[in-house]
Amino acid sequence: MTTARAYAASSLNAPLAPWSLERRGVGPGDVRIDILFCGICHSDVHAARNEWGGTTYPLVPGHEIVGRVVETGSSVSRFRPGDLVGVGCMVDACLTCSSCKAGEEQLCETGFTGTYGGTDKISGGVTYGGYSDHIVVKENFVLRIPAGLDPAGAAPLLCAGITTYSPLRHWKAGPGKKVGIVGLGGLGHMGIKLAHAMGAEVVLFTTSPSKVADGARLGADAAVLWKDPAQLAPHAGTFDLILDTVAASHDLDVFLQLLRRDGTLVLLGAPDQPHPSPNVFNLLLRRRSLAGSLIGGIAETQEMLDFCAQHGLLSDIETVPVQKVNEAFDRTVKGDVKYRFVIDMKTLG
Amino acid sequence: MTTARAYAASSLNAPLAPWSLERRGVGPGDVRIDILFCGICHSDVHAARNEWGGTTYPLVPGHEIVGRVVETGSSVSRFRPGDLVGVGCMVDACLTCSSCKAGEEQLCETGFTGTYGGTDKISGGVTYGGYSDHIVVKENFVLRIPAGLDPAGAAPLLCAGITTYSPLRHWKAGPGKKVGIVGLGGLGHMGIKLAHAMGAEVVLFTTSPSKVADGARLGADAAVLWKDPAQLAPHAGTFDLILDTVAASHDLDVFLQLLRRDGTLVLLGAPDQPHPSPNVFNLLLRRRSLAGSLIGGIAETQEMLDFCAQHGLLSDIETVPVQKVNEAFDRTVKGDVKYRFVIDMKTLG
Repeated sequence: MTTARAYAASSLNAPLAPWSLERRGVGPGDVRIDILFCGICHSDVHAARNEWGGTTYPLVPGHEIVGRVVETGSSVSRFRPGDLVGVGCMVDACLTCSSCKAGEEQLCETGFTGTYGGTDKISGGVTYGGYSDHIVVKENFVLRIPAGLDPAGAAPLLCAGITTYSPLRHWKAGPGKKVGIVGLGGLGHMGIKLAHAMGAEVVLFTTSPSKVADGARLGADAAVLWKDPAQLAPHAGTFDLILDTVAASHDLDVFLQLLRRDGTLVLLGAPDQPHPSPNVFNLLLRRRSLAGSLIGGIAETQEMLDFCAQHGLLSDIETVPVQKVNEAFDRTVKGDVKYRFVIDMKTLG
Repeated sequence: MTTARAYAASSLNAPLAPWSLERRGVGPGDVRIDILFCGICHSDVHAARNEWGGTTYPLVPGHEIVGRVVETGSSVSRFRPGDLVGVGCMVDACLTCSSCKAGEEQLCETGFTGTYGGTDKISGGVTYGGYSDHIVVKENFVLRIPAGLDPAGAAPLLCAGITTYSPLRHWKAGPGKKVGIVGLGGLGHMGIKLAHAMGAEVVLFTTSPSKVADGARLGADAAVLWKDPAQLAPHAGTFDLILDTVAASHDLDVFLQLLRRDGTLVLLGAPDQPHPSPNVFNLLLRRRSLAGSLIGGIAETQEMLDFCAQHGLLSDIETVPVQKVNEAFDRTVKGDVKYRFVIDMKTLG
C-alpha cells in the first residue's frame, strides 16, 4: 500500500480539501502512475455534490488523468516506468461478458468499475479518482498518450474526447455526412473538433450568440441559435447524426425534425428531470432513431488518442492549481470555462 | 371517368353506408383494378371517426386491396388484364426525392399520396380507398400477388404485412437474432409469422393470458405477460429488436430494458396521448435506440409478398360482407378479431 495525497469532498456541503488515502500495492497486472494533470468534468461536480444520488464520502473525483508510469507489476508487458499514460472513466470491468469481449467495457453487463466512487474488484475498497498525486490501475485500463500530445490538453480527451469520438465512429461520421453538435461545453467543443477532423460537415447548435464565433474557430461549418425557428428551418431533414451534449431537460423534437431519413439523435447525458416525451411521428415519418451513448471502450479510447495525435487535436483548457478546485467547480457549473479546467497536480506540493 | 360503388363515412357520426363516386379515367400509366377483397385496418376506423383529425368526408377507407386488373394504360408494361394485383397504403409519391429514389416512397420527403383521403396528383381530387368495387392506380404503386397466395388472406399483407416486414428487414431479423413483438393484433400476428419465417427467435409480449397459446400457434417461441415483472426478468438485456405494435400510450422503458447492447425498440404506431418519456439511462447504458417505422417501400412490399408466397404465409382473417362493415369496425376496436377482417367486395352486389 502507498499513501496518496488528494483533494476530497468529505461531505455533501463541504468544499474539496486536502486528504490522504491508501492506494493498493502494485499487483502483478497493475501500473502505478504519478499523476501530472487531471481534467475537471461536470460529472465530478455532480458526484461531489451528490446531485445524482449515491455518493459515498469522502469522494476523490477525477477521471481525466494523465501521468507517468513509475512502477509496473510482474505481468505487465505494455508499459514501463517513464511512459506517459492516461486513465479515463473506468479502472475495471468483468472482461468476460459479451460487451467486454467486444471491446465495449463501458457497456459491461455487470457494470464497469468507475475510476472514483466504485468498488475496487481487487482491494474490495472504494475507488478514488485523479485529484491525487498517484493512482494504481490495472494495465488493461491504462491508455498510452501518444508522443506529441500535450499532457495537460490531452487529459480531457479521456472523458470528453472519447464520449464524443465513440458515437461519431459508431454512427459513421465522415465525408459526405452532416453532423450536428448540440451545446458548446467540454463535450461539445471536442465533438466539433473530432467531427470536423473526420471530414464531416459540422453544425453547432447553441443558445448563446457569444458562442457562434467560437464554433467556427473550433471547426464548425455553421452555428445555429436553435431557439430561433427561422434559423432551424433551412436545416430541417438534413442531418445524418446529431450529438446532444445538453443534459438539462429540453425539447428533443427540435433536433429529431432536423434529421434526414434514417438519421440518429444521440443523447450523451441524462437530465435530472425527464425530457418532454418526443413526438412519435418524428420517429415514424423518416425512420429516425433516438439513441444514447456512454463514453467508449478501452481500445476505442486508444484509437481516439492516436487519432488526436495524428490530427493535432487537444482540448481547449484552462490550467488551475489544485487549491483553486472549488472555484473551478463553481465556474464549471456556470459554463465559465473554455472549455475544460485541468488541474496541475504538481501543485499538490 | 367511371362510377364506382363504395361504402363511405359521410360524416363524423354516420355509419358507413353505400355511396358512389367517380374514379379518374385510365391514363397512360394507370391500371384499373376490380377489387375482390379489402382488409379492415384499425387506421380505417381512426380515419372514419376522425380520431387523428383532418378527415375529409365523405371518406372511403381501405388500403389493403386485392383485385384483378381489368384495363391498363398505353404505357403500362408490367400488368395486363386478368393479373391478380394488390394496392397498399400509397397510390403516389413525388418519385424524385432521395427517399423515393432509394425505393422508400413511404418516407417521401414531400409526403406520399394516401390510398384514401389524399390528394390525387393526377385528377386533383380526393383519393378514395378500397371499400369499393374498383380503383384506378398508377402502375408504380400496383403490386403483383404471387401465384399460390389466397387473395383474401393476402389483402392484409399490403399494410399489416409490410409494416412489420420492413423493420424486420431493416434491423436485420434472422437466425441468431432474438425478436420481440409487442401486442397480438393485425400487425402483431404478422410480425410473429414473418420474424419466425426469417429464422429469428420470437417472443410475444401481450397483456392477455388468452393470447399466449395463439402466440405459439403463430410461431412465437415464447409469450410473456409483460405486466408481470417476474415474467420479464429472465429476458432483461437479451433482445436484438422489439417491434412495438401498441399505439396506445404505454411505458416504453419496460421494453428498452429488454434490449441487449445496440438493440432497437421500433414503434410502429403513434399514440393519441404521448408515451411517458423514456428513461435516458436505458438508452445510454447499452447504446440502445428507440426508432419508428412506417409501412415500407413499393419494391420492398413486392419482396414481402414474394417472401410470403415462398413461405406460405397469409394473414389470419375473418371474411365479412360489406354490409357488416360497421359491426366489423366495432369489433376491430375491441380487438375481437383473429386477426384481420377482410371485406368480400363481391358482396357490394
